Amino acid sequence: MDANDLLAGIEAIGRNPGGGYTRLAWDDATMQLREWFAGSAAALGLEVTEDGNGNQLAWWGHGPDALLVGSHLDSVPEGGPLDGPLGVSSALAAVARLKAEGWQPSRPIAVVNFTDEEGGRFGVACLGSRLATGAITPDAALALRDDAGDSLAEVMSAQGRDPRAVGRADWLDNVSSYVELHVEQGRWLEPHGSAVGVASAIWPHGRYRFDFCGQGNHAGATAMADRHDPMLAYAATVLAARELATIGDRSHSRSPQARATFGRVRVNPGSTNSIPSTVTAWLDARAASEAELEALVGAIIGRAEAAALADGTTVATRAESTTGAVEFDHALRHRLAALLDAPVLPTGAGHDAGILAATLPTAMLFVRNPTGVSHAPEESATPDDIDTGVDALVRVVKELG
Amino acid sequence: MDANDLLAGIEAIGRNPGGGYTRLAWDDATMQLREWFAGSAAALGLEVTEDGNGNQLAWWGHGPDALLVGSHLDSVPEGGPLDGPLGVSSALAAVARLKAEGWQPSRPIAVVNFTDEEGGRFGVACLGSRLATGAITPDAALALRDDAGDSLAEVMSAQGRDPRAVGRADWLDNVSSYVELHVEQGRWLEPHGSAVGVASAIWPHGRYRFDFCGQGNHAGATAMADRHDPMLAYAATVLAARELATIGDRSHSRSPQARATFGRVRVNPGSTNSIPSTVTAWLDARAASEAELEALVGAIIGRAEAAALADGTTVATRAESTTGAVEFDHALRHRLAALLDAPVLPTGAGHDAGILAATLPTAMLFVRNPTGVSHAPEESATPDDIDTGVDALVRVVKELG
Repeated sequence: MDANDLLAGIEAIGRNPGGGYTRLAWDDATMQLREWFAGSAAALGLEVTEDGNGNQLAWWGHGPDALLVGSHLDSVPEGGPLDGPLGVSSALAAVARLKAEGWQPSRPIAVVNFTDEEGGRFGVACLGSRLATGAITPDAALALRDDAGDSLAEVMSAQGRDPRAVGRADWLDNVSSYVELHVEQGRWLEPHGSAVGVASAIWPHGRYRFDFCGQGNHAGATAMADRHDPMLAYAATVLAARELATIGDRSHSRSPQARATFGRVRVNPGSTNSIPSTVTAWLDARAASEAELEALVGAIIGRAEAAALADGTTVATRAESTTGAVEFDHALRHRLAALLDAPVLPTGAGHDAGILAATLPTAMLFVRNPTGVSHAPEESATPDDIDTGVDALVRVVKELG
Repeated sequence: MDANDLLAGIEAIGRNPGGGYTRLAWDDATMQLREWFAGSAAALGLEVTEDGNGNQLAWWGHGPDALLVGSHLDSVPEGGPLDGPLGVSSALAAVARLKAEGWQPSRPIAVVNFTDEEGGRFGVACLGSRLATGAITPDAALALRDDAGDSLAEVMSAQGRDPRAVGRADWLDNVSSYVELHVEQGRWLEPHGSAVGVASAIWPHGRYRFDFCGQGNHAGATAMADRHDPMLAYAATVLAARELATIGDRSHSRSPQARATFGRVRVNPGSTNSIPSTVTAWLDARAASEAELEALVGAIIGRAEAAALADGTTVATRAESTTGAVEFDHALRHRLAALLDAPVLPTGAGHDAGILAATLPTAMLFVRNPTGVSHAPEESATPDDIDTGVDALVRVVKELG
């Protein structure tokens, strides 16, 4: 059971005509991927369980002090093939290799498929790991709604799951460390000539909803001076966000210090010959420290409010999810970097490992991405680098397990 | 059969929870409104026909030299109750009044419900009148697709219509003038103290599609300097369009000279934590002359291209529909203005009357809109002004009929 072969076995699931992958929590694609995970794990002789949140576990041994490896199988809309599945496939391949070698673990090993890591359906990232660790309450999660207006409770019920089982997961009490392997996002390993790296930290980040409100009106009959068009303050805010995040880059050091993105926008009524009445947009913001993130988001909101005021429109903002800075366990990351002779790098991307890091020692391995592109169809790693990632994970499991 | 009562009879059809109306060509709401039109006309003893394009006609008498009155029943998404239905209801009410008075027309009178005036479903405004007059070819129209990807041919077939019947309509050969009554869009009659006005002209206008293309990527892991984010050039173009249309306002005269609006935008993949790969947006632009419109659109495209170039992204643009300046028949409009002692005003909004004006003498009456708001739920006219509009239409039909 080779990681490249495992990935080839799911390459048709959730693939769009343009080559991107849309695998959202509880949709047909992720339901097929659940079957694939359960079948692959069973073929290795692992015992597969699912907690009340939809997180799948494949156990090699039982009892306390387990080592958890794995990642997730969902994607962003139109995402790439590796963000998530590389970590799950590599973990299954590592177990297969260890079993073939006749290696016996001294502690239980579990491979995990966390549900809804991307938050592509209900808006909150890492929902499965947040629920399992208690970082979000069941009531708050179950009330989240997708674009079709269906709540998580309704969607889980429709897939035969009991929403009353959602929440803090007992199995986590038996886990004492977690290692997540992931495709690199960004392009650091390639110029540094390394196939595999170890994560130092995850930047603090958040998702913020901006509701720009104006007065819907006729696009032809309303004089420019008489308008209260909320699209204008939205546009000004997009440009302000770029400017403010880039200033952060320049003023602090040579390395990038902040990121701000508007990747999702909803216009009402969304008609060519109508001035919009509302524009709702989501800001994804990240920075190297919580203070910098707070300052960045505050400055963007300030610019949005000033632009709206000048147009006789309004803007209301709220954080939909925020994640503080994550510093991975120092002892564990130094041990793995030394074991693998791998460089240590920070990341701007969030991961389930970032959520679990608040509860138990956690580490991440990154596999080189030649273009650095992620969350897009171009996301890639060479077959050789994927094998090198599995080799690294095998050594890590032997070292820790 | 009173116009206010007629409007009250359809106030629940296609109404959204927020109070706006979404009545798009061939949807359930406009199919119900077709039934209502046919039933109301039949109750007046009119003979109802439908041409191959879906335009409904209710005939009082037969033969050549007919006078056409009416408007349309579809709306923009989340539109108001009067844009379209006021003209159809007023025409039916005027016929009812004339019949009750025992008045006998000297020429045939027809009440029309033009299909798909707003272009809210297939992107091209005045599709029914364009097809009937030959201003668009059947092949071009039938290939248009809605947001669900269905072509006009498929949608008409699903509603039991034969797409092969689409095209130039014979009944128009029997029509020698058209008068369309419409709720005012903009706010000119209110400060001028008039309930009813006569249109002088319709500004030239068009819809232009902008395809901004960049590189989809991870919103957290991609440094600001490494991005090719097409949302940025879109935002710059929105602000440039406002600036350029407003300069037009200021430089030419005290009255507004141009309008530019981005009311519809589609982002791919549309994910909070992804830099978009493409942003598609539609510009609605209008100006007092064709030369000014061309200059305005050219300048906006120039600014879009410059912004895209600076970001390492691209933009492609094309006109989806354009309509030249319409000057309503001078003799007819002077005759109606004198008859009604009504002021004469231009409009930035397009109408089926503007399409028919290329073929036959055409006039428009506007009924005062106290707020000027249109294409939004707040669009309104007082019951007294609606009655005054019907009175005016009755006098016009008696004068011309």
